Amino acid sequence: MASESTLTDGPTTDTNRHRVFNFSPGPATLPLEVLEIAKNEFLDYRGSGMSIIESSHRSKEYDAINEEAIALTRELLGLDDRFHVIFVGGGASTQFAHVPMSFLPEGKIAAYVDTGSWSAKAIKEAKHFGSVEVVASSKESDYTFIPQPGDFTVPSDAAYLHLTTNNTIFGTQWQSLPKPTVPLVADMSSDFMSRRHPFSDFSLIYAGAQKNIGPAGATMVIIRDDFLATAKEGLPTMFDYRTHTNKKSLYNTPPVFAVYIIKLVMEWLKEHGGLSWIEAINQRKQQLVYDLIDSDSDFFRGTVRPDSRSWMNITLRLPSEELESRLITEAKAAGFAGLKGHRSVGGIRISAYNAMPTAGIEQLVRFMADFRKSA
Amino acid sequence: MASESTLTDGPTTDTNRHRVFNFSPGPATLPLEVLEIAKNEFLDYRGSGMSIIESSHRSKEYDAINEEAIALTRELLGLDDRFHVIFVGGGASTQFAHVPMSFLPEGKIAAYVDTGSWSAKAIKEAKHFGSVEVVASSKESDYTFIPQPGDFTVPSDAAYLHLTTNNTIFGTQWQSLPKPTVPLVADMSSDFMSRRHPFSDFSLIYAGAQKNIGPAGATMVIIRDDFLATAKEGLPTMFDYRTHTNKKSLYNTPPVFAVYIIKLVMEWLKEHGGLSWIEAINQRKQQLVYDLIDSDSDFFRGTVRPDSRSWMNITLRLPSEELESRLITEAKAAGFAGLKGHRSVGGIRISAYNAMPTAGIEQLVRFMADFRKSA
Repeated sequence: MASESTLTDGPTTDTNRHRVFNFSPGPATLPLEVLEIAKNEFLDYRGSGMSIIESSHRSKEYDAINEEAIALTRELLGLDDRFHVIFVGGGASTQFAHVPMSFLPEGKIAAYVDTGSWSAKAIKEAKHFGSVEVVASSKESDYTFIPQPGDFTVPSDAAYLHLTTNNTIFGTQWQSLPKPTVPLVADMSSDFMSRRHPFSDFSLIYAGAQKNIGPAGATMVIIRDDFLATAKEGLPTMFDYRTHTNKKSLYNTPPVFAVYIIKLVMEWLKEHGGLSWIEAINQRKQQLVYDLIDSDSDFFRGTVRPDSRSWMNITLRLPSEELESRLITEAKAAGFAGLKGHRSVGGIRISAYNAMPTAGIEQLVRFMADFRKSA
Repeated sequence: MASESTLTDGPTTDTNRHRVFNFSPGPATLPLEVLEIAKNEFLDYRGSGMSIIESSHRSKEYDAINEEAIALTRELLGLDDRFHVIFVGGGASTQFAHVPMSFLPEGKIAAYVDTGSWSAKAIKEAKHFGSVEVVASSKESDYTFIPQPGDFTVPSDAAYLHLTTNNTIFGTQWQSLPKPTVPLVADMSSDFMSRRHPFSDFSLIYAGAQKNIGPAGATMVIIRDDFLATAKEGLPTMFDYRTHTNKKSLYNTPPVFAVYIIKLVMEWLKEHGGLSWIEAINQRKQQLVYDLIDSDSDFFRGTVRPDSRSWMNITLRLPSEELESRLITEAKAAGFAGLKGHRSVGGIRISAYNAMPTAGIEQLVRFMADFRKSA
């Protein structure tokens, strides 16, 4: 895999391959190199005489994929073998309930930071299982910032503290994560593996695959064994995390194809240089867009407080909805798809996940600057 | 799509494409025509400039897939619009808990027929939520038969009667299904869409996709609206079936790729003639194998009572484990994969799902007859 091709991937005049720059918030763009591997071996997975989607999850082929996906996760995140890595279905939305069902015992409270729609949903589900304390929230300010780690207190006896590290809808992201005073739990769906963090500080991390690491259909859950040991006993089999950790996600049939693509994406990440490599690229990409916004902030109106700006989902408004709608339409015609903001906030949203090439951002920024001149 | 190619698909001498006959019990063989379509449009889904696995689940492309998958399900099964069709993650194993969580209220009992490992697991999970009565079981006879509908009684006030229509591990299948006296619920994972039944009799049907209709990662659930109206209220959002029926599986991100393949498989079924077409093929396929077994039953020892024989998973023993092991090894070398019986029962298992071509069965039967002669 050549890093050149990754970073220059995008719209092409090759009549055999039409490809747009896809700024969708998720499911999202994936590395073209990964897609090409998947396509090439789709009918005959590495000499097995069948597609990987026809392969038994008990086959040696899938076993190797599963083992490698677990090993790559640990390697890329710098985790030791205290951390279990599992792949389950149901999306992060199911984890909103699954986490408190397992880790919020009677008589305890769970602490949550409310930084947007996904946090709010996680809080709502936790209330089905026990007491919740929202220890910090930016709701009153329309979720335009991330509470700073020094600005709130977590009860020392909380069962856990839950964060949403990146907020796809509101375009905010934790730039530094709190140190653990109680077990840290995070929904990292939308910035997972996009930059370095002290991941070992976390007791549980979950991430829907469909932003940075793969297609929809698998959720990765990472659980440290000391936290796992505190999980409630006696739950229905599929709701007990131990069912999955004990069998390395093979208690029942896992989402084979999604895990296979996740493994390919992690190989791509590793071969290019891992999280420090992608962090530098993502840093550069967000800088290009925010520089444009800051250079003409009367026209390109960023919606969030600068210290809370997301690298993954960059949200902005133009002076009118008519201009926003025109930009989205003209951008689409020029090969930039998926720029419409979430229906709950409107405006423009530029999702710049790992697989979005720098060239895609450069070309979009140029397009937006030209649009501004002609507006 | 030509029906010729479907039925003669299999091992090939074409050096560009190596393909075995895959008798795996699931994930399982899929129609080659479907795999070829998926491969051909994998990098650019119908002119969208992106892979279907990169496409937003809110895109017009995915919306069309989802709508068509729902419509095809109703059409192939002969269901009217009282029936909701949803696609969820977590496998049938999650439904084992999800069904009683929703439909087994306090003070009622749920009736279950125990026909094998999967039934037993469903019963175990139901006990987490309420009272269960096993109204019929073949456990004492090592699950070698299916209780006949006239031979057991269902309490008239049962919340529902739960069946497993086909038992992959033990090789048994309900040849005719009971008429409803209480709401009928069935796990149809391993014979779904393989033959005709009065599907409208069922209040709820669930099926993991990875046998007859697609890859692992999606479970189809069909719920009749009168039964849905009785579902418990106040459950966590993702455990309330209404969350999914109200949004046509788009409340959260669905398993996009799995649903896409399921839709292609159902198009393949419909274009060839639907369930009556595949039923005739499946009838012929199982007949070929059971004829071989019956022609030499001292050597090929069928493990189940003839009236309960599965068309989908044909289980047999040879006179010794050494012979079984030899047959599996030699078959594999000859291009017949996945014939090993489940570890809990041993022996040989021939899974003959919808996408297994008749030619695959014909060639396997010839191979087995030759093996017998040389044994």
